[in-house]
Amino acid sequence: MQTYRAIQLSKRPDGKPIGPHMFTPVDLSIPVPAEGQILVKQSHMSLDPAMLGWMNPDTESYIPPVELGSVMRSFGYGEVVASEHPNFAVGDKVTGMFGWAEYALVGAQGLNKLPASVNPEMALSIFALPGLTAVQGLYSIGQPKAGETLIVTGAAGSVGSMVGQLAKADGLRVVGVAGSDEKCQWLVNELGFDAAINYKADNLAEQLAAATPNGIDVFFENTGGPIQTQIFERMNAHGRIAVCGLIADYTKATPTPGPSWINVIKKRLHIEGFTMPDHLHKAPQLLEKLTPYVMQGKIKYRAHVLEGLDSAMTGLNLFFTGGNQGKLIVKL
Amino acid sequence: MQTYRAIQLSKRPDGKPIGPHMFTPVDLSIPVPAEGQILVKQSHMSLDPAMLGWMNPDTESYIPPVELGSVMRSFGYGEVVASEHPNFAVGDKVTGMFGWAEYALVGAQGLNKLPASVNPEMALSIFALPGLTAVQGLYSIGQPKAGETLIVTGAAGSVGSMVGQLAKADGLRVVGVAGSDEKCQWLVNELGFDAAINYKADNLAEQLAAATPNGIDVFFENTGGPIQTQIFERMNAHGRIAVCGLIADYTKATPTPGPSWINVIKKRLHIEGFTMPDHLHKAPQLLEKLTPYVMQGKIKYRAHVLEGLDSAMTGLNLFFTGGNQGKLIVKL
Repeated sequence: MQTYRAIQLSKRPDGKPIGPHMFTPVDLSIPVPAEGQILVKQSHMSLDPAMLGWMNPDTESYIPPVELGSVMRSFGYGEVVASEHPNFAVGDKVTGMFGWAEYALVGAQGLNKLPASVNPEMALSIFALPGLTAVQGLYSIGQPKAGETLIVTGAAGSVGSMVGQLAKADGLRVVGVAGSDEKCQWLVNELGFDAAINYKADNLAEQLAAATPNGIDVFFENTGGPIQTQIFERMNAHGRIAVCGLIADYTKATPTPGPSWINVIKKRLHIEGFTMPDHLHKAPQLLEKLTPYVMQGKIKYRAHVLEGLDSAMTGLNLFFTGGNQGKLIVKL
Repeated sequence: MQTYRAIQLSKRPDGKPIGPHMFTPVDLSIPVPAEGQILVKQSHMSLDPAMLGWMNPDTESYIPPVELGSVMRSFGYGEVVASEHPNFAVGDKVTGMFGWAEYALVGAQGLNKLPASVNPEMALSIFALPGLTAVQGLYSIGQPKAGETLIVTGAAGSVGSMVGQLAKADGLRVVGVAGSDEKCQWLVNELGFDAAINYKADNLAEQLAAATPNGIDVFFENTGGPIQTQIFERMNAHGRIAVCGLIADYTKATPTPGPSWINVIKKRLHIEGFTMPDHLHKAPQLLEKLTPYVMQGKIKYRAHVLEGLDSAMTGLNLFFTGGNQGKLIVKL
């Protein structure tokens, strides 16, 4: 009987860096699909900040945490190698929730067939959770209008870089916040952002003021951290804030307080949080909104590819250190 | 030449209680209306928390502050005593922005004629800013649904008491937060709230949990203060928060921080601030929404009447001490 390698979650985050001490690699038998099932050989796995939430047993969260002893949850790209479902054939390229594993036995629900012209990195960087998330948050909550100013944190990340490029294509002034000068240069020189700010700089307030001379109309929040309040203070009247992620706060026992609500009133701000499980039923419409931008060459991406299944265990830390350059993908 | 008494703002708030040291009473000549103008003899003046904002030279606020040396701004009720406008006749009962003064010379803009059946206290307590504010915030942002739970702070105030009664009439579980046991009893026994909490109690968290066994779906915020975060923590997924006032924070140099945005994401909350100057053009529709509730006897109110123009100068402090019992009105 052939086996495949998978990685199970065996310990909850404890404040220390995510690492092999939290996981248990196992060898499992390659299963045979029953009626309606599809066996996928995964070639590329997506690492996403949402995974940090999935590892925590927080019953208030929007989807149940991964149970200890289960294969770690993740989204990925692969090829159908056996199918007992009429809509999927051997050789089809697909994305879906495959987990940290070389093989996955899945149903048709949530399995997406992709044309061969979409390569795995593009599939996981654009036509996946990051693209759906960017479109949902930017248009439903952000309501961007040409001539306005948008600021996005985590701007060099997979969601942030797409949000900024979409807004730029729509005629907004776009400012990105990222964690290194290299990323800032990439945002401005490669993606066409109007300005980019390294949040580790010590003259943050001055940089922020210089980059947003007309204030801020749309704030797409991916990170949290001290810059949140500084951005908040520059919001214009009737500004919109889409709260998508708070990577700087996820593992803190006591998260940073938010800004006072005084300016929520004075400036009549609209703040709204969202998570994609609420909106996945709209995926076709969201992708329809996204596709023309991609076709017109307005959405660039870069993938940060880690090699080998085991690299996922330490790879997640790159979200905390900001060490990733582009969409984190594990190549199996 | 006949004169009338008015009170000018002569000093900005300085952290001390609002009082006569900030104002200058003056005697002014009673003017004669020119073409298009109306002279109103004011009999009742409304005191509102918004006035505290109007005294501060904060250019970010939604309407310009009262200039030093000008008559203090306010809304009131009076009778037309001379008119050079075709739509208003001597003897008409009207509400409008008359200021702290016995007489006001105004244009037709913002002047509302009322039937004689609406007495002055009802006019200023319901069919005025409080009623418009309650309807705008509750329905546009709160989106109340029968069976849900609503909590309102400043619940015994003019806006809060109306919000609670509207929601109760709509079939929600309604919990009020107020600053005295007497007010809490009034909310439950007279207005029919399901529960009321004195925010000065020391077992606030327990009381809050007991009063909202199914969590909170709509939070109508009038006060700010430490209870804000405790209420926030009990919000249900997809909860709505209408931020209307933060009386506890208006005069603080450093306002209390708001709650972390972690739960904005986890619970996909919608937080929105609003101020009525943005919505006054919709006043007819808002009053139309409100009127049937009043006609059906579902909206009770109580007025806290102060005697004499000069009582306004110290009367505003009642908002800070919570010493008012019902809508603050100055009878001239």
